[in-house]
Amino acid sequence: MSLINENFLRLHKSYLFSDIARKVKDFKEKNPDIRVVSLGIGDVTRPLPASAITAMHKAVDEMCRAETFRGYGPEQGYDFLRKAIVKTDFIERGVTIDIDEVFVSDGAKSDCGNIGDLFNADCKVGFTDPVYPVYVDSNIMGGRFAISHFPVTSENDFVPSLPSEKTDLIYLCYPNNPTGTVLTGEQLKKWVEYALEHKSVILFDAAYEAYIRQPDIPHSIYEIDGAKKVAIELRSFSKTAGFTGVRCGYTVVPKELVITADNGTKIGLNQLWNRRQCTKFNGVSYITQRAAEAIYTPQGQAEIRETTDYYMNNANYMKQELTNMGYNVYGGKNAPYLWLKVPQGETSWSFFDRMLHELAIVTTPGAGFGPNGEGYVRITSFGKKEDCIEAINRIKNWKNI
Amino acid sequence: MSLINENFLRLHKSYLFSDIARKVKDFKEKNPDIRVVSLGIGDVTRPLPASAITAMHKAVDEMCRAETFRGYGPEQGYDFLRKAIVKTDFIERGVTIDIDEVFVSDGAKSDCGNIGDLFNADCKVGFTDPVYPVYVDSNIMGGRFAISHFPVTSENDFVPSLPSEKTDLIYLCYPNNPTGTVLTGEQLKKWVEYALEHKSVILFDAAYEAYIRQPDIPHSIYEIDGAKKVAIELRSFSKTAGFTGVRCGYTVVPKELVITADNGTKIGLNQLWNRRQCTKFNGVSYITQRAAEAIYTPQGQAEIRETTDYYMNNANYMKQELTNMGYNVYGGKNAPYLWLKVPQGETSWSFFDRMLHELAIVTTPGAGFGPNGEGYVRITSFGKKEDCIEAINRIKNWKNI
Repeated sequence: MSLINENFLRLHKSYLFSDIARKVKDFKEKNPDIRVVSLGIGDVTRPLPASAITAMHKAVDEMCRAETFRGYGPEQGYDFLRKAIVKTDFIERGVTIDIDEVFVSDGAKSDCGNIGDLFNADCKVGFTDPVYPVYVDSNIMGGRFAISHFPVTSENDFVPSLPSEKTDLIYLCYPNNPTGTVLTGEQLKKWVEYALEHKSVILFDAAYEAYIRQPDIPHSIYEIDGAKKVAIELRSFSKTAGFTGVRCGYTVVPKELVITADNGTKIGLNQLWNRRQCTKFNGVSYITQRAAEAIYTPQGQAEIRETTDYYMNNANYMKQELTNMGYNVYGGKNAPYLWLKVPQGETSWSFFDRMLHELAIVTTPGAGFGPNGEGYVRITSFGKKEDCIEAINRIKNWKNI
Repeated sequence: MSLINENFLRLHKSYLFSDIARKVKDFKEKNPDIRVVSLGIGDVTRPLPASAITAMHKAVDEMCRAETFRGYGPEQGYDFLRKAIVKTDFIERGVTIDIDEVFVSDGAKSDCGNIGDLFNADCKVGFTDPVYPVYVDSNIMGGRFAISHFPVTSENDFVPSLPSEKTDLIYLCYPNNPTGTVLTGEQLKKWVEYALEHKSVILFDAAYEAYIRQPDIPHSIYEIDGAKKVAIELRSFSKTAGFTGVRCGYTVVPKELVITADNGTKIGLNQLWNRRQCTKFNGVSYITQRAAEAIYTPQGQAEIRETTDYYMNNANYMKQELTNMGYNVYGGKNAPYLWLKVPQGETSWSFFDRMLHELAIVTTPGAGFGPNGEGYVRITSFGKKEDCIEAINRIKNWKNI
């Protein structure tokens, strides 16, 4: 046996966004005078809310005086932030969550990868297809190769069917990255019932919940009865409040979520995750946590609503224009992503390449998210309004379509 | 098979510092009028360097304007910081490290836990005893139960002997937590030679290197010839620059560190760690990285020297005073920890309890760091000068010794 975790050798050689970055870099080097418009990687462009900026300046100043300096914080996050999270994200939506069920982290990507530490390598894992690649790759690193795929395509209106074989760990991301579609409460309820019946665990990634505009779409899986017995929920401030470069998110692990170990002991996942975080993590910057707290003030809430509205206006505008041009475009109603069907006879990578080379527009090829992403490209609405307009104008005048 | 990673069930029920925190809390509740002096958990008390404060204010302001806003940064850290690290921490000490061998993170504790992702569950792991518990617990979580222990006690002058059985992964922390002792270049060289001969990997935790005061003690394992073929080095800004609540560190994974996989392929650990970090991590706050960069300016270097001198003055003062009182005290010359031999016939926990209940002083019982920590307590010098003086005065007047 070699020294290394050989599961890494089973991973695809490189990461989707690195491949795209390389292609874009090549294009830019060959075409230094052409302005490239990116509707590709899901990074935000609006500055941080003023409330977060004010809170960070104040927190930085606290760190420069011995009397107000803060050293190690709680691994689980400061109570001031956990309380604000519980109140605004859950209690105000009719969901009861205790503050010790909330674990603040440096972002949903870390939690989403690290949560695998809690599970057996023999678990059967289920993903929608297409899917955010981190779910898949982190499970392969953890030795979980038995995988169920739940296709989501225009043929099933992007509503995944329940697994045909027993699946232990189920990843659901709603509003969905990459398709930009959502599940209704009724549709989500079927998954909770499946998990209750099969003793499965659902990892519910709600990183985009702030983009939901229809009042009847659930923001949290805990809006579904029984979900606290089966689901872990991942949340992020990245897209909600522009924290992609600040790094903060949180994970909810309900105390009701209990697994029976081989020796018959009942083990709460809350207790396991707490142990994992206390051992392999040391909390989030105090300054960052004060910024996150600030977005829960009335001012902060108004500011993030303004920012998410800005991006949703981009989404609505592009969806309308592309639909008028005759494209089939999905998503973009309760999510910042559009999922565009590429013209008949093209692959997602060939369409990506043509858009890059003929229009200098960067998208993300659907095939990068899984076999059932073939035939689509993802378009993000996180760009500047003027870039979205520029992109639409270029597509309107596209001769080679 | 249950759904969970049952390795968690093999962990000791709770974490050393939580046990201590509970005892201290009980004491404070029962004795609300007594001021407790903490020489226990290794948290710093001096405020952040002014250079870091200025840099953070500037970075926060950049985040509030669309033109200067930064979203996702590189998972590996910004080049401005990686360049500063390489120049000051390595090149100026005669060690050549490439910037793509440096991975900036949210702290050495995260890296120290997460690095286990790269290694086979069947590896035999070696630790000094006593040892920082995170090394042990994170390996147990990863299913690595075959463990060699290298005792470090006053009997061997705290110099560990090479393993008697082949050991694959070797954790060395120098300057050492908890004993406060160091290894000379000659002593460290034996470990590098062992690793070269046995194709082992050394995880070298140099979180306390800024406290080295003797010029001939190595700050980096890469000062030893051949170390780049066998060693990963972990560094932290927590103790160097007071970043315990800001969260930043880095890990060096040399490109020369190559392992042969079972199929004969040569795999660089640099490439594996890069893949791990790109999948399960999303970089460190831009604001934090600007603060870390600032400590590499001449002003920043002078400020952190002043801070580490402040703590080392505490260490020297307490060591001198305790030695004068007749205690055997180790460490504290090139490290911020003193390792005090408890009086004959007492255990480290009973001595800890007596100091807490009779003197209202918090230390850390050596047994919490491993069986060979029995008979010692760890005293940190990260407190305020006046608290160190107060603690020494209480010990001087201790009737029950």
